[in-house]
Amino acid sequence: MIRQTLEKKAALIEKRLDELLGEYCCKGKLCDAMSYSLMAGGKRLRPALCLITAGLFNAENEALDFACCLEMIHTYSLIHDDLPAMDDDTLRRGKPTSHVVYGEGMAILAGDGLLNLAFEVMSDLTANADGDYTARYAKVMSVIAKASGVRGMIAGQAADLEFEGKGNSEEILSYIHDKKTAEMIKASVLCGAMIGGADDVQTERLEQYGKSIGLVFQIIDDILDVSGVEQDLGKSTGKDEAAGKQTFVSLYGIKKSKELAQKETQKAVDALGIFGMDADNLKQLAVYLLSRDR
Amino acid sequence: MIRQTLEKKAALIEKRLDELLGEYCCKGKLCDAMSYSLMAGGKRLRPALCLITAGLFNAENEALDFACCLEMIHTYSLIHDDLPAMDDDTLRRGKPTSHVVYGEGMAILAGDGLLNLAFEVMSDLTANADGDYTARYAKVMSVIAKASGVRGMIAGQAADLEFEGKGNSEEILSYIHDKKTAEMIKASVLCGAMIGGADDVQTERLEQYGKSIGLVFQIIDDILDVSGVEQDLGKSTGKDEAAGKQTFVSLYGIKKSKELAQKETQKAVDALGIFGMDADNLKQLAVYLLSRDR
Repeated sequence: MIRQTLEKKAALIEKRLDELLGEYCCKGKLCDAMSYSLMAGGKRLRPALCLITAGLFNAENEALDFACCLEMIHTYSLIHDDLPAMDDDTLRRGKPTSHVVYGEGMAILAGDGLLNLAFEVMSDLTANADGDYTARYAKVMSVIAKASGVRGMIAGQAADLEFEGKGNSEEILSYIHDKKTAEMIKASVLCGAMIGGADDVQTERLEQYGKSIGLVFQIIDDILDVSGVEQDLGKSTGKDEAAGKQTFVSLYGIKKSKELAQKETQKAVDALGIFGMDADNLKQLAVYLLSRDR
Repeated sequence: MIRQTLEKKAALIEKRLDELLGEYCCKGKLCDAMSYSLMAGGKRLRPALCLITAGLFNAENEALDFACCLEMIHTYSLIHDDLPAMDDDTLRRGKPTSHVVYGEGMAILAGDGLLNLAFEVMSDLTANADGDYTARYAKVMSVIAKASGVRGMIAGQAADLEFEGKGNSEEILSYIHDKKTAEMIKASVLCGAMIGGADDVQTERLEQYGKSIGLVFQIIDDILDVSGVEQDLGKSTGKDEAAGKQTFVSLYGIKKSKELAQKETQKAVDALGIFGMDADNLKQLAVYLLSRDR
């Protein structure tokens, strides 16, 4: 059932992403490159988390554009991450990566463009909001900026680059995963809650949920890099080991990694107790993330 | 006199940039790389324009952090512009470029980090502003995001890349210059005016001023690329011709380019008429930009 829900949200998000590109983007190779990566499918997990969480507070409509901005930021990070100077990947979401198709320079600019566009759209949402929503949206933007920034995703990316092939400690592995992946997943949940006007207790529980599924997401990613099928995943596998990267699998083995993921999933589900059946979607999503094979 | 004013503003901006880096940035190579480029000096023209314009409305203090964000965005654009996949420059602000010192991957991330940081700081300013200032700051952020984005600076950069060596028409040259350089210079003036609460007429005049000096800045840049001294400029010269780029000089020659710059400078000065002597700084700055040799 959660699969259908996710598909519906993805369709909603893709329609709106396409509209936003049309509204904000000039014509030309730059916008082709941005659209190529942004409209290439993918799980749309982050925006779906934002929408479903906002849905708990009947605020899905208000959350849609913010959800799209989360996906823009995620996509920009993939484009830059795939560059020859970074992970040097040629396959993403089942298609050749941006720099393979458009060249390195244009891929860098397409990433820059998507990051900037996310903040352009959010600035406009905030500037055009009514009354109390102006301050609320500014706070949402601030949470996203922190998660995607130099104390969040970019810090994780930089640590990943800095410590590659250096036989990382458990501490560094945990830092990289937390920053590079979990922060944005947590922020996706958190900003859905904020847009919906969640109170302090609700916010705290949803934050815990986001933190736990963020960790599960990364553990499963590491397992799939070893055991997944390239065609199913739509991206290259075996890259971590080849690059000498520490992962949950290299550190704990597959069995213990899976146990860890199970434990965190239970924590995520437990955190949602106060919402009762209203949070069934989010609970199912946590279980789905644990069992995903792509 | 304007030189001293600019030096004072630059000192103010550099002090605050350093504080903001300390406040927002984690330790490590990423932040070293961001600081290396951000604190490397430079004219600090964009933030100075923002401060001096806000000063017309006694709003220099309120404008300081936004001014710093303009400089972060400008610096990120230089780091990415200098990358091997783009202009492939090794010298900037008199020092080796970021990728030469930190490697390409880290240079890309340092640029990403500075762009994200600018919006993180502006989001926080907006979220923490009192009353009417929340909406005002959101609008300022929106103006900056548009100028730096895919209908502004990044569009210019992409066109520059796309049409390199293709013998551009006057129309394309004008598009590239307008987007790549003039938009952010105009926005720097405009957001100083907005932060200060300028009325419609004042805003329109300052926008015209910004537009004209933006154009002058680019014309002089092209002239200096041909006739300037590498050591004075702190960056490589002769790059445009080597890359087969159309410039004002290649299109009109030095003499006519200088005349064009003089005409635009006069337009800039004329636009400030309504402000009387209060705008002397901005007028002097326009004349200074015309005569600069670095």
